[in-house]
Amino acid sequence: MLAAIEAGGTKFVCAVGDETGKIIDKVTIPTTVPSETMKEVIAFFKQYQITAMGVGSFGPIDIDQDSPSYGSITSTPKTAWKDYPIVQELKKEFPIPIGFNTDVNAAALGEATFGAAKGLDSCLYITVGTGVGAGAVMQGHLLQGLSHPEMGHILIRKHPEDSFEGVCPYHKDCLEGLAAGPAIEKRWGQKGSELTHKEEVWELEGYYLAQAMMQYLLILSPKKIILGGGVSHQEAVFKAIRKHLPEINGGYIALPDLENYIVSPGLGDQAGITGALMLAYKALNEQIA
Amino acid sequence: MLAAIEAGGTKFVCAVGDETGKIIDKVTIPTTVPSETMKEVIAFFKQYQITAMGVGSFGPIDIDQDSPSYGSITSTPKTAWKDYPIVQELKKEFPIPIGFNTDVNAAALGEATFGAAKGLDSCLYITVGTGVGAGAVMQGHLLQGLSHPEMGHILIRKHPEDSFEGVCPYHKDCLEGLAAGPAIEKRWGQKGSELTHKEEVWELEGYYLAQAMMQYLLILSPKKIILGGGVSHQEAVFKAIRKHLPEINGGYIALPDLENYIVSPGLGDQAGITGALMLAYKALNEQIA
Repeated sequence: MLAAIEAGGTKFVCAVGDETGKIIDKVTIPTTVPSETMKEVIAFFKQYQITAMGVGSFGPIDIDQDSPSYGSITSTPKTAWKDYPIVQELKKEFPIPIGFNTDVNAAALGEATFGAAKGLDSCLYITVGTGVGAGAVMQGHLLQGLSHPEMGHILIRKHPEDSFEGVCPYHKDCLEGLAAGPAIEKRWGQKGSELTHKEEVWELEGYYLAQAMMQYLLILSPKKIILGGGVSHQEAVFKAIRKHLPEINGGYIALPDLENYIVSPGLGDQAGITGALMLAYKALNEQIA
Repeated sequence: MLAAIEAGGTKFVCAVGDETGKIIDKVTIPTTVPSETMKEVIAFFKQYQITAMGVGSFGPIDIDQDSPSYGSITSTPKTAWKDYPIVQELKKEFPIPIGFNTDVNAAALGEATFGAAKGLDSCLYITVGTGVGAGAVMQGHLLQGLSHPEMGHILIRKHPEDSFEGVCPYHKDCLEGLAAGPAIEKRWGQKGSELTHKEEVWELEGYYLAQAMMQYLLILSPKKIILGGGVSHQEAVFKAIRKHLPEINGGYIALPDLENYIVSPGLGDQAGITGALMLAYKALNEQIA
């Protein structure tokens, strides 16, 4: 049996399942401090005979296998988890192959294997919620270089009528600073979920997300862009993105049919945990190979 | 013997060499119309016993092997070459494996194999001259998705004191529109090569290129960024990029040592033709495999 962890800043989703993406049992554990959260995580998995584990984690994380801090959560603002060697700690209890990547890379892998990008060798998964994160599968591989990408903080251009200064502690008005949930709430004075019928909110959101997607298209050219996270529950945001993207492109590249190109996750909220299951399956096969 | 073509908008560089990157003979042919240019190209290669060919071409080009127009130059402003099926035409004369990719992807491959990124599994090659183009090797593969990337036209933010509107026919003030040779010439009234001692030219150029490199870092995270093309002959531009990049990053990601990270091509002007030789070598091996 394969084990999967979707390690988030507010909750850890733990599941056991198989390589077809089937989930057999699942539990949700609040993210408090490592000693508490991990105790429950370990107890859950101890119930099963597991052969490999996959962890899709909030970050930034160290995924460089040659690094001494490989398998750690690094500079997170969640101080209890800063520099926490999650893979090493799990290995102590479960001496099995453990695949480790970002939560968004796991979600991209889940979507490429069983979701909206099934059958394609590339896709980009972007989630817009309390933050903005994105991961990608390119030519069948989870994209990785010097480190994992940090696409949520790219620079975009402010709308000329948007006087909101942005909330990113590093950049103020990068994508996350202008378009994530906290930015929406601070700009409009209400949570996004309470602004469903306010058209201008999603129009502006789409304007910013279209800019980001244009950059991803020009730099990566993924075969599908999947938008998840809280913001993706607003249908109006897809409409606005599909309107603004061709304007930004200005006829430069041949755009695919945007209705089928920028889509919701095929796995819904299960993209991350399913991807973590696939990380486990990959880790198992790499060991055998 | 391997054949290589670096097909540019002003000249075709043709070479024969081997898989170690050694060039045995080389010729430069002006890019006029296909009937003229290709006649000379073919005559040059007919002198040799060649087993495979690699073509790094100006673009946009169609590199989707499932597409009916695979191997063509597509929507280029050079009308004589628009929709020209270069691979198909070469195949008529040389029925051997032919690798085909963009000129900048070829250069990235050359640099990753024998140049500044030798030994690394990823690098990004950006050339800033009459246009801005970039290609990348990621996890050992030339980056490709829906199409080849078109990174030269990403959106950047205008410097608050730059009143120049930009020259890109599609976007006006995208990266190419603000930072390529024609933009420099129009903004300052002189060619870049005549502005060597004008500090503010390279300061502004570095400001724009640093923004682009920050986006590439966040989205791709290549292990090396190699800056080629006419602009790279100005040492001041490297200095300005290395100054602006940390400012733009705002302490967000851990930056590598920029002196060794953003560098000139290790192969100098030979990156493209050497990469085309490697495209030939890859094509040969793929056929055998």
